[in-house]
Amino acid sequence: MSEEGDYDLAELAKRRGFFLQSAGAYGGVSGFYTFGPQGASLKDNIENVWRERFTVREGNMEIDAPTVMPEPVFEASGHLDGFDDMLVECPECGESHRADHIVEDNTDYEEAEGLGPERVGEIIAEYELVCPNCGTGLAGQAIEDFNLMFETNIGPGSSSPGYLRPETAQGIFVEFPQLKEYARNQLPFGVTQIGRAYRNEISPRKSLLRVREFTQAELELFVDPEDGEGPDLASVADVVAPFYGVDQQEQDGGEPLELPVGEAHERGLVADPWIAYYLGVAAEWYESIGVDMDRFRFRQHLSGERAHYAADCWDAEAEVDGDWIELAGFAYRSDYDLSKHDEYSDEDYTVFRQYDEPVTVEQPTVDPDMSYLGPEFGGAAGDVADALEDLAAEDPDAFRDAAEDPEGDGTVTVEVGGDSHEVPVEQTGFAVEEVTESGEHILPHVVEPSLGIDRALYTVLDHCYREDEIDGEERTFLELPAAVAPTTVGVFPLMDRDGLGERAREVAADLRERGLSVAYDDSGAIGRRYRRQDEVGTPFCVTVDYATIGEARDEDEGEPGTVTVRERDTTAQRRLPIDELPETLEALRDGDLAFDEL
Amino acid sequence: MSEEGDYDLAELAKRRGFFLQSAGAYGGVSGFYTFGPQGASLKDNIENVWRERFTVREGNMEIDAPTVMPEPVFEASGHLDGFDDMLVECPECGESHRADHIVEDNTDYEEAEGLGPERVGEIIAEYELVCPNCGTGLAGQAIEDFNLMFETNIGPGSSSPGYLRPETAQGIFVEFPQLKEYARNQLPFGVTQIGRAYRNEISPRKSLLRVREFTQAELELFVDPEDGEGPDLASVADVVAPFYGVDQQEQDGGEPLELPVGEAHERGLVADPWIAYYLGVAAEWYESIGVDMDRFRFRQHLSGERAHYAADCWDAEAEVDGDWIELAGFAYRSDYDLSKHDEYSDEDYTVFRQYDEPVTVEQPTVDPDMSYLGPEFGGAAGDVADALEDLAAEDPDAFRDAAEDPEGDGTVTVEVGGDSHEVPVEQTGFAVEEVTESGEHILPHVVEPSLGIDRALYTVLDHCYREDEIDGEERTFLELPAAVAPTTVGVFPLMDRDGLGERAREVAADLRERGLSVAYDDSGAIGRRYRRQDEVGTPFCVTVDYATIGEARDEDEGEPGTVTVRERDTTAQRRLPIDELPETLEALRDGDLAFDEL
Repeated sequence: MSEEGDYDLAELAKRRGFFLQSAGAYGGVSGFYTFGPQGASLKDNIENVWRERFTVREGNMEIDAPTVMPEPVFEASGHLDGFDDMLVECPECGESHRADHIVEDNTDYEEAEGLGPERVGEIIAEYELVCPNCGTGLAGQAIEDFNLMFETNIGPGSSSPGYLRPETAQGIFVEFPQLKEYARNQLPFGVTQIGRAYRNEISPRKSLLRVREFTQAELELFVDPEDGEGPDLASVADVVAPFYGVDQQEQDGGEPLELPVGEAHERGLVADPWIAYYLGVAAEWYESIGVDMDRFRFRQHLSGERAHYAADCWDAEAEVDGDWIELAGFAYRSDYDLSKHDEYSDEDYTVFRQYDEPVTVEQPTVDPDMSYLGPEFGGAAGDVADALEDLAAEDPDAFRDAAEDPEGDGTVTVEVGGDSHEVPVEQTGFAVEEVTESGEHILPHVVEPSLGIDRALYTVLDHCYREDEIDGEERTFLELPAAVAPTTVGVFPLMDRDGLGERAREVAADLRERGLSVAYDDSGAIGRRYRRQDEVGTPFCVTVDYATIGEARDEDEGEPGTVTVRERDTTAQRRLPIDELPETLEALRDGDLAFDEL
Repeated sequence: MSEEGDYDLAELAKRRGFFLQSAGAYGGVSGFYTFGPQGASLKDNIENVWRERFTVREGNMEIDAPTVMPEPVFEASGHLDGFDDMLVECPECGESHRADHIVEDNTDYEEAEGLGPERVGEIIAEYELVCPNCGTGLAGQAIEDFNLMFETNIGPGSSSPGYLRPETAQGIFVEFPQLKEYARNQLPFGVTQIGRAYRNEISPRKSLLRVREFTQAELELFVDPEDGEGPDLASVADVVAPFYGVDQQEQDGGEPLELPVGEAHERGLVADPWIAYYLGVAAEWYESIGVDMDRFRFRQHLSGERAHYAADCWDAEAEVDGDWIELAGFAYRSDYDLSKHDEYSDEDYTVFRQYDEPVTVEQPTVDPDMSYLGPEFGGAAGDVADALEDLAAEDPDAFRDAAEDPEGDGTVTVEVGGDSHEVPVEQTGFAVEEVTESGEHILPHVVEPSLGIDRALYTVLDHCYREDEIDGEERTFLELPAAVAPTTVGVFPLMDRDGLGERAREVAADLRERGLSVAYDDSGAIGRRYRRQDEVGTPFCVTVDYATIGEARDEDEGEPGTVTVRERDTTAQRRLPIDELPETLEALRDGDLAFDEL
C-alpha cells in the first residue's frame, strides 16, 4: 500500500502503459509481463543509469552472454541438482502448488522452504491442509523437487539439453579464463552483465515481484582473498543508510541502525570492504532513481539464509504494499563458482599471484635408480618409481627419517596395486632442491552485487506515486527523477490552429533530434494534457502559444519567440526563449540545472 | 574477406574482446556467442543509436515483451506450422544436416528451400549426395520438417508449452488491442522493440551471421491502407543509396541503381512511401555506425522470396567476406498479422476509422410477423425468421422484387435445414432504414523495418578494419565512429611515477563521472598503449605528462596543466588544458566538433 492511500498499482500500470500481463488476448500467462511504452522507457533509463554507475564509472567490464546455456554449465554451478522448489499437486483438480507456501499461508511456520520436503509433507498432513484451488485435502500427496530452470533442446533431438539461465552470473563465471586475459591477469577486476534471467515458478504471484522472466543487473568482482586492503571507501563513506544486521534482527524489537557506510564498515557490521563500498554505491543509486530512502534498508542474511559458501550477504530491501521486498543481494561468494568450473571443465580458472619478493622453497625430488628397480620389481618398476615421486611430494620426511635413523633398515615403503614394496633410500635418488618461485596460482574470490531491475521499477512506481490538489481539482502524479522519467518533455500547442500546431510540431521535432524523449499532444484542454503527462511522470511540459509565433494580443502574454515551460511537481511555470529550450531541458534532465534557477 | 587483405575476424574478435563462442570451457555450443567487454559496449552503443533514431526521433513507442511466449500466439502467427527447415539425418553417424544446404553445396541448385522436401529428397538420390560428416550416402533418407522454435514448458508438467520467440514482432502484434489505446486509436503509429530472438538452427555456421540466439530491433508501423499520403519524405529524399530492384536483378548483368530515396519512390521503384522513408532513415543510420556504403545496397525480394501476404519487401545488404549478407528487411506485411490474432483470439484488433463526413447508408431490416410464421412453420419458425434477416442483409433486392413484380407471387424464398420455404413479403416486415455512420472498423496494415543487431555489429567490425604504417611500423586499427566505439578515450600516464599515475587516475575518474567510457592503461611503452586502443577502435587517447603536473623541463614540452590528446585515424596530437577535456571529448564523441578544429 502506498503512503498516498489505496490504489491498484497493477491496474494503473496497465492503463498508463507501464506494464501489463502478456498475451492477454489469449487469456494471459502467469509470470510474464510486457512493458508498455512508458514502462519500457523507464526500464531502459534505469538500465542505463545502472550501467553508468556500476560499469562505466567504476571502470568495470561489461559482457553480454546468451540466455540459453548448455547443461554442463549448470552441472558445475549446482543449478541442475539444487535449484528446486517443493511441488505438491492436487489429486482432484490437478493444480500445482508450492508446498512450502501452503504451509506458510496456513500455519505459523515461517520460511518453510528450510524445513525440507519430508517435514513439509508431515505438516500438511498434521494440519490437514487443502488445495487452495478446489479444497481437496493434500495429506499424503508426494512433495516433489521441481527444478526451476526452463529446459529446452539445442538442435534436433534431445541429445543436447539447454536451459534458460537462472541468473546472468554463470555467463560471466564460465568465461573467466578469457576474461582474466582481458584484465591482463590483474586482480581486482569487475565484470558486469545486464539481461534476462528465468525461473519457472510453480505459481507466480504478486504482479512484477515474482515472475518467470525478469531482468538482472549483476556485477562479479574478482578479488584476491589475501588483499585485505579493498577499495578506497572515501567516495561513499558518508552515505547514510539503515543497516539491519544479524544482531539487530535477533534482538527483540531490534531496529536497523542509521549509519554512514564508512562507520558501518569500521564497526565491523559490514565486514568486507568491497561489500561496504557497493552498499554505499547502491544506496546512492537507488535514491537517484526514485526509491524513498525512508522505506529502504540493508538487511544482513541470517546464517540459515546464506548459501554454505557465502561468508556474508546483505540484501537491499524496500517497503512496498506493507512488505519488505528484496531489491538486490550483495554476497561474498568466496571461490565457490570459479572452483566448480575449474573442477568440472578443462580450463584454468586460476590467476597467477605475483609475490612481492620471489620466495625460495624446498622441493623434494626423486631420481630412482632404474637399474636397481628393474631387476627388483620387474613389470611394477615404473609404478614403484611413480609412487616414490608421490611419496616425496607428500611426505619427504619418510626419506629423511629412513636415511638418518641409525636403528632403521634404511628403506622407504610404497604401495603399488595393494602390495607394499620396500626400497632402499640410496636407490631412490632422493634430494631436496631449493626452488625460487615468483608467485602462485590462486582462485580469486567473488563479491557479487546483484540487482533486480523489474523490482526496482515496481518500487519506483510505488514510491513516486503522489496525490495532491491543484486549483481545487484532485491530481495524481509520479514524482519520477528526470533522469529516469519515460518522457522528458511534453510539447503542446495552445490550440491546433493559426499555425500553433505546426510550430509546436517543429519544436517537438527539434527536441527529438537532440535526443530528448518528447510526447506531442494537441488533444483536449491544456489542463487535461498536463494531467496526462503528470500521470506518467513527465517532469516538464512546453506550451507553444500566440506569443511564441509573435501574435500575442498584448505583451502580458509573453515576449515573442518564447514558450511556457511548466514543472510537474510544483506546477510552476516560466517563459523561456525558444532557442534556449534544448540546452535548458537537457540541463534540467541531467540535473545540471534546477527549475527554480530559471 | 576484408578489403584490407586476409585476416580472421572471428579470431581477432575473440582476442580483442569483441565476441567468442560461449562456454568454450565445456567445448562450446554452436550458434551461441558471448560478447566480450569491447563487443558488449559496441553492441550497446549500436542499440542506443538505433533507439535514438528509430524510436525517440520518430516519436514511436517502444515496448519490451517477454522472450518466452505461450503456444496460442504462435498458432495464430503461423510459426507453429510453418517455421521449419528441412532436416536430414545421417543413418550412419547420426549427424543432422539441412537437406537444402547439402543440395545447394553440391549441385547447381540455388534456393533449394523453395523446391520442397520431396524434390530435395529426389535430388539427393539423383546426385547420390553424402553426409558431409562421414561420407555415408543419404539417398532414401527421410527429409523432415524441423520446427526452428526452441520449445519449453511453462510451469510444472507439459500442459502449457512455451516457445522462445522467433522474432520480437509477435510481442507487439499480440498486444495491439492495448497498444491502440495508448495511441488513442489514431493511425499511423509505430511501435518498436529491441531484444533477443531465437532460431534453433539445425547447423549454425558463419560465426555471428547464422546463430541460434540473436538481437533484433524491429519497428511495426500501423498504417491505414487507404491513407495514400504516407510520411513526409523531405527529410530523407536526398539520401542516395544503391537500389537493386526486381528489374535490375532479372536483367542480365543488371546493376543496382544509385538513386536518391525521393527519386526511387517517384519512379515507382520503391512503391510504398513508408518503406521508402525508412530505407532513407536506415541508409543514413548504417553509415553513421560505420558500414561502408560502397559495400551496401537495398535489394528487393523477387516474387518467389516474399511471403504470400507481403506486397513488397526490400532487404538492406552488406558485402562481407565476398558475400552479400542480409542486415535488415523492410516488408509491407498488409493486415496479415493483425487479422490472424483477430481471428484466433477474442480481442478486437481493428481500429475505428472516422469518415471525413458522416455517411448515410441504407440498412435493410426485417420484422417478421410471428403470428403468421408460427402457425405456418411450427418449430422452424424461429429459423425462418433468422434466415429472412440474413437474406435481407445479403440480397435486399429479393424483397423489393417480390413486392414489386406484378407477375410474381409476392413471396421470398429462404432455406432452412435443406428445405425451401416461401414467405409472403408483407409478412416479413421488410423495410430499408437510412442509417448515419461516422466511420468503420478496419484492420491496419503493417510496414516492418526489422534490423539484426549482431549482423550489423559483425559488418561494422569487418568494414572498419584498417591496416597502415606508422613510423615504419605496421598498425591495425578499427575506424569505428566515435558514437559507437566501445571506449571513447584511453587515459595514460607517460610513466607510472613522480605522481603522473595519480594525476592520470584522477583524470580517468573525472571523465568516467561525466559518463565517458574510459580505458586506463599504464603498462608498457606509450606507443604500445596507443596500439592497444587503436586495435579496439578507441577514437581518442589522453596522455598525462610532466607538463600536466607543472614539472616540464622546458616549455616545448607543453604549457602547465595541459595534456596531449591523440586522434586514432590520423595519429595527430594536440595539447589541451585539462579543464577543457570533458566538454571537448563529449563534443568530439557526439560529432559536435571535429578533431582538426581543435
